[in-house]
Amino acid sequence: MKHYIGIDLGGTEVKIGIINGDGAIVKKEAFKTESTMSGDQLVAYMADCAKKVVTSAGMTMKDITGAGIGSAGLLNPDTGQLRIVVNIPQLNDVFIAPGLAKILGVPAFLDNDVNAMVLGEFYYGAAKGYKDVVAMTLGTGVGGGLIFDGKIYRGAAFTAGEIGHMSIDTDGLYCPCGNYGCLERYIGRDGIIQRCKMYMNKGIETSINNYLENGEVTPRAIAKAAEAGDRLAREVMEETGRILGNALATLVNILNPEVFVIGGGVANAGDLILEPARREMKKRAYTIPAQKAIIVRAALKNDAGIVGSACVAVDKLSA
Amino acid sequence: MKHYIGIDLGGTEVKIGIINGDGAIVKKEAFKTESTMSGDQLVAYMADCAKKVVTSAGMTMKDITGAGIGSAGLLNPDTGQLRIVVNIPQLNDVFIAPGLAKILGVPAFLDNDVNAMVLGEFYYGAAKGYKDVVAMTLGTGVGGGLIFDGKIYRGAAFTAGEIGHMSIDTDGLYCPCGNYGCLERYIGRDGIIQRCKMYMNKGIETSINNYLENGEVTPRAIAKAAEAGDRLAREVMEETGRILGNALATLVNILNPEVFVIGGGVANAGDLILEPARREMKKRAYTIPAQKAIIVRAALKNDAGIVGSACVAVDKLSA
Repeated sequence: MKHYIGIDLGGTEVKIGIINGDGAIVKKEAFKTESTMSGDQLVAYMADCAKKVVTSAGMTMKDITGAGIGSAGLLNPDTGQLRIVVNIPQLNDVFIAPGLAKILGVPAFLDNDVNAMVLGEFYYGAAKGYKDVVAMTLGTGVGGGLIFDGKIYRGAAFTAGEIGHMSIDTDGLYCPCGNYGCLERYIGRDGIIQRCKMYMNKGIETSINNYLENGEVTPRAIAKAAEAGDRLAREVMEETGRILGNALATLVNILNPEVFVIGGGVANAGDLILEPARREMKKRAYTIPAQKAIIVRAALKNDAGIVGSACVAVDKLSA
Repeated sequence: MKHYIGIDLGGTEVKIGIINGDGAIVKKEAFKTESTMSGDQLVAYMADCAKKVVTSAGMTMKDITGAGIGSAGLLNPDTGQLRIVVNIPQLNDVFIAPGLAKILGVPAFLDNDVNAMVLGEFYYGAAKGYKDVVAMTLGTGVGGGLIFDGKIYRGAAFTAGEIGHMSIDTDGLYCPCGNYGCLERYIGRDGIIQRCKMYMNKGIETSINNYLENGEVTPRAIAKAAEAGDRLAREVMEETGRILGNALATLVNILNPEVFVIGGGVANAGDLILEPARREMKKRAYTIPAQKAIIVRAALKNDAGIVGSACVAVDKLSA
């Protein structure tokens, strides 16, 4: 059976795991991202960490078919070069995939974290068996990954999938990206919180204050209150779902996918958001493609980053 | 040199032509769509017409590599079956491509007119040499065709590309499709005319009335007045371009194409619309994909329907 290394590169830690040909995690470990290291040192360190995980799985590098790296930021998946990694600036412009490939002795491939996510879901998750897939991550940011005719689509400058920055209201809220009415401003983490606080400040009765996290209103706190039956919290979640559904209707009309896979922390609210999203999408989109498009939660949970990153290699090596 | 038949199926006439391997029209003719015929009779009639064009070009069917049919309406490009053709209802559910292939003795393929348009531009027009293409037709309706990584993308139910029905304003104008704020409502032919009339009814000074067509305000009349320097007409065109640019910015962020090819009658206004569209797109979209995306007019003009339809066959037979 083939095995792949998945490296989920984050600002505070690097999660490294080995998956088998069924997409199951054989072994995994998290390592601190050492901010004092140079870019080259970090690459060597990550290779060392990966080798450790391989060893602790009772394997050698001969058992490994390839390695995939998923990272936030701007990057070039063709050359394996990171361009702008805001949280780990010493990796800017570093050719991380060729560097790791050289040390590890296996092919290594780089892609952004949302493309890694959609590939993970495509090979081993909720998008398995589908060929036209739109994946979305709902969290602080709203991101997206696209699979058309069974192939990941990255766009001409590798920036395709910025679903959070589709404008749903030409004169809507200003977005730091330079546009108005971006989806992310309404259903990104801050957008949800702002809407909720706005209603709370009007004195509408709610139990949300019983569910705060570190004294703060968060999407999870709102979801918990909604699950407990709180009317305002349910309305905030439903409104979030309706806004999402509006955007999905546009995506249905433009892209006619078979499945929307919704992941990210905010998606943990599940049907509190997805059920109104489905209703709104069906109301707004053309009937034929709307009937074809299902909206489901991402299947890969905690280890989605590792599995998805490994799938960057799975995808390249099975093409 | 290979030659292909292109059949551009319309409600009032069928345009049939032969293109050579350079995309040049060798011979073409238009035939009336006989509304008294049954579906099968119409297929036989079209095959006869096609053979006539071949003969009049001094060729035989042995010189023809394949035939492509472009049609409005709902259809299945995999089976070559028309499903719903509003203007020629006797063709509903007719397997037109297999029918023509049988009579003509060459492979025949069916696709919708906007996909035919984007294929024509991809092989022989403004999208030649690009691999990530979004084509738009601006006319009574606003349609779209998509090419990703050098391959046409039709979606799971063959309805992808309905760019006219992306919502640019969640609470905007009601659209007969069942959504609110659809792009087509603002920059489709009727949307442009309505906006123009609204301003004219306010008594704003304009010379548009000197350019009416059959006594009516039309996009062409507005464009002519704008070209002659009419202030209100220019504003209507500029507003149209800005709204288009807003939609293109969303498409840049989602799809990161290399080129937008804009065709259809309204696009004849050229830079009166496209220049404000470019400005607005650049203002609103992410910088990196915006720098990559050019906005150009469709290159194939009068014969676009024939060449595009023929390219449906070119594409299938070169795949």
